[in-house]
Amino acid sequence: MKNMALIVQKYGGTSVGSPERILAVAEKVARRRASGDDMVVVVSAMSGETDRLISLAKSVNPQAPARELDVLISTGEQVTIALLSMALERRGCAARSYTGSQVHIRTDNSHGKARIIDIDDARVRDDLGKGRVVVIAGFQGVDEDGNITTLGRGGSDTTAVAMAAALKADECQIYTDVDGVYTTDPRIVPNARRLDRITAEEMLEMASLGAKVLQIRSVEFAGKYRVPLRVLSSFEEGPGTLITYEENEMEAPLISGIAFSRDEAKVTVRGVPDKPGIAARILGDIGSANINVDMIVQNVGADGTTDFTFTVHRGDYRQALEILKKTAGQLAAREVTGDDKIAKISVVGVGMRSHAGIASTMFKALADESINIQMISTSEIKISVIVDEKYMELGVRTLHAAFGLDKQPTAGR
Amino acid sequence: MKNMALIVQKYGGTSVGSPERILAVAEKVARRRASGDDMVVVVSAMSGETDRLISLAKSVNPQAPARELDVLISTGEQVTIALLSMALERRGCAARSYTGSQVHIRTDNSHGKARIIDIDDARVRDDLGKGRVVVIAGFQGVDEDGNITTLGRGGSDTTAVAMAAALKADECQIYTDVDGVYTTDPRIVPNARRLDRITAEEMLEMASLGAKVLQIRSVEFAGKYRVPLRVLSSFEEGPGTLITYEENEMEAPLISGIAFSRDEAKVTVRGVPDKPGIAARILGDIGSANINVDMIVQNVGADGTTDFTFTVHRGDYRQALEILKKTAGQLAAREVTGDDKIAKISVVGVGMRSHAGIASTMFKALADESINIQMISTSEIKISVIVDEKYMELGVRTLHAAFGLDKQPTAGR
Repeated sequence: MKNMALIVQKYGGTSVGSPERILAVAEKVARRRASGDDMVVVVSAMSGETDRLISLAKSVNPQAPARELDVLISTGEQVTIALLSMALERRGCAARSYTGSQVHIRTDNSHGKARIIDIDDARVRDDLGKGRVVVIAGFQGVDEDGNITTLGRGGSDTTAVAMAAALKADECQIYTDVDGVYTTDPRIVPNARRLDRITAEEMLEMASLGAKVLQIRSVEFAGKYRVPLRVLSSFEEGPGTLITYEENEMEAPLISGIAFSRDEAKVTVRGVPDKPGIAARILGDIGSANINVDMIVQNVGADGTTDFTFTVHRGDYRQALEILKKTAGQLAAREVTGDDKIAKISVVGVGMRSHAGIASTMFKALADESINIQMISTSEIKISVIVDEKYMELGVRTLHAAFGLDKQPTAGR
Repeated sequence: MKNMALIVQKYGGTSVGSPERILAVAEKVARRRASGDDMVVVVSAMSGETDRLISLAKSVNPQAPARELDVLISTGEQVTIALLSMALERRGCAARSYTGSQVHIRTDNSHGKARIIDIDDARVRDDLGKGRVVVIAGFQGVDEDGNITTLGRGGSDTTAVAMAAALKADECQIYTDVDGVYTTDPRIVPNARRLDRITAEEMLEMASLGAKVLQIRSVEFAGKYRVPLRVLSSFEEGPGTLITYEENEMEAPLISGIAFSRDEAKVTVRGVPDKPGIAARILGDIGSANINVDMIVQNVGADGTTDFTFTVHRGDYRQALEILKKTAGQLAAREVTGDDKIAKISVVGVGMRSHAGIASTMFKALADESINIQMISTSEIKISVIVDEKYMELGVRTLHAAFGLDKQPTAGR
């Protein structure tokens, strides 16, 4: 006999982008409800709706106050909850819709990027007890003065995770337009494999490196409350990828995936005096210009000087180079160089903590293909290298094969 | 020195139908605020928006549950309050938007046709005290369980009046696409005159007769709480028409306006037995078919029989005639006749209570133009006649002139 579970599902804007798709979601939810599970469904605004509302706002006030923007934009999800509840009721499935404010998703008052403080789940539990599917507007909440707030773009994932945490749900299922997390991008490596499981730590490293499946904040949030999180496709059947919080590294594979990014550029100052405060001085000028810096590498120098290299977003390359030339002049540095035809490739895996051989396997595989490594940077569960942009696809494919990612691992996942 | 006043204004869907119109409303409101008055503004959904939402609902569920329809449709006004507040802020005019639920417009739980029970005005007063314009979503409220309700179409007028009553506002100004209440339709009588004042009683008789400027419910509501109500144009400057609750008929003109309706048809049963219960029997069968009856006339008969005539909406004429033929057969009536080429013309005025000569002036004016009167019906402040449809315009013009409505009255209004 099947045990009844409490499931929180979240459907994004594309999944509810038209009446037909809303009816398809209703079908999926109603089937699961009919199988006996208690269902809470969090939805985003229909795709395109948020942009339509923002453009209306701009037409009356290009600097619209954040409080009123939240009042406006929150109507997007309110439309979806009503339509999905109607679609469920049409199938004979009892449903109730709630705005963020109605189910007391209490947030701070940072309009447009509010953080959830507390959820009062009494009303939701009451409805679940009566056999109803509860449909909740994602992305929105209410501050202590009753003002409508929004969590910022992508915040519906966070709503779902927070609701799952409050209800101690058995699983929080995030439906998207991909069917899970892959070992790398299938467009580059055709035999990339969907992972059945991935740890939250790995997921965070993968996400920030471009494998953008889930909002980073919602993964962090899920980790904090140990909410079992699953990524699935709205459009295809399949088990998706489960995000776990296992500490047991014995069963973990060495490497879970290969992430990469093409939007990179690097700038180098050569021959700067090797004394305290130089790095801060160089990065200070860059930071003041609101340029984000990703990798930073400084090597030990000779003759009392050192070389300092960092990477920036490719769009910031020209500006970074100019700023750096000015700083270099003041520091009496020898030379400033740069390259905006580079790419970053990273191998990610919690297993590497206990396996020193990962780096050498990685570097040897790249060397065998004559791919020169320009920079190296490492974290506890990630090794990133910068290579010439033209080698990016070859590098990703080479590493995917070198770590056997196309094969089902023999370890426990 | 000008005394500061508290003004509640209401702008309908056409008045806020585009970003440009919302900016124009903001301009008007901000100017008045700058002159020192405290301002509360109630708005409807942008024109077309409610219909768009209803058609979305139909596409997922032709029998959408009323609760969810209210969740959906209430987003229309929520969009407008946000946009108007943004537009006001752009002009440097501090503003705050509130949904019906945020300012506790408490209603019963009749979704789609809810009635206002109570308004908690603390929040509005607090904002007014801080010099803010308060922008409130019309047409919506919240029941005691926190569910969103709507007051039904046109309910934004009622929201404005209820808010004005709760705040004891100095005036409630309803902005529409006409610039006031006229002595009759200017399309028929070019020298029809805008009334500076009209009593609520007259307004109700005018409204139900086709001069549809305000929702009847909001006028009744305003009368109950003696809220000074003014109808003005969103698109033209002008003082509009003030709706009053004066008891002093000394200053009232005899007649305030001429109302008319072309959507009429009459049916007559001749020679029915003149005994108790006959009228009830005849109207009972009509009522069971959900046909609304307007005027009813029964004359004293001869030979123990009587003739019985009533008017119905022209669209119900055929059905009414058929039902009546069946009933007439059972009652052994002599004959059933009908005519769907008729019109109703009414003269309305609180002054007629004390002036018996109105009816004879009316009938003589029509006779002078050889317009035959087919039916007569009177109420305390109204006399209605049925005439051949082809005489409607002539009849209206004749009566408008006969009662001197094109001239400014010498009495106090």
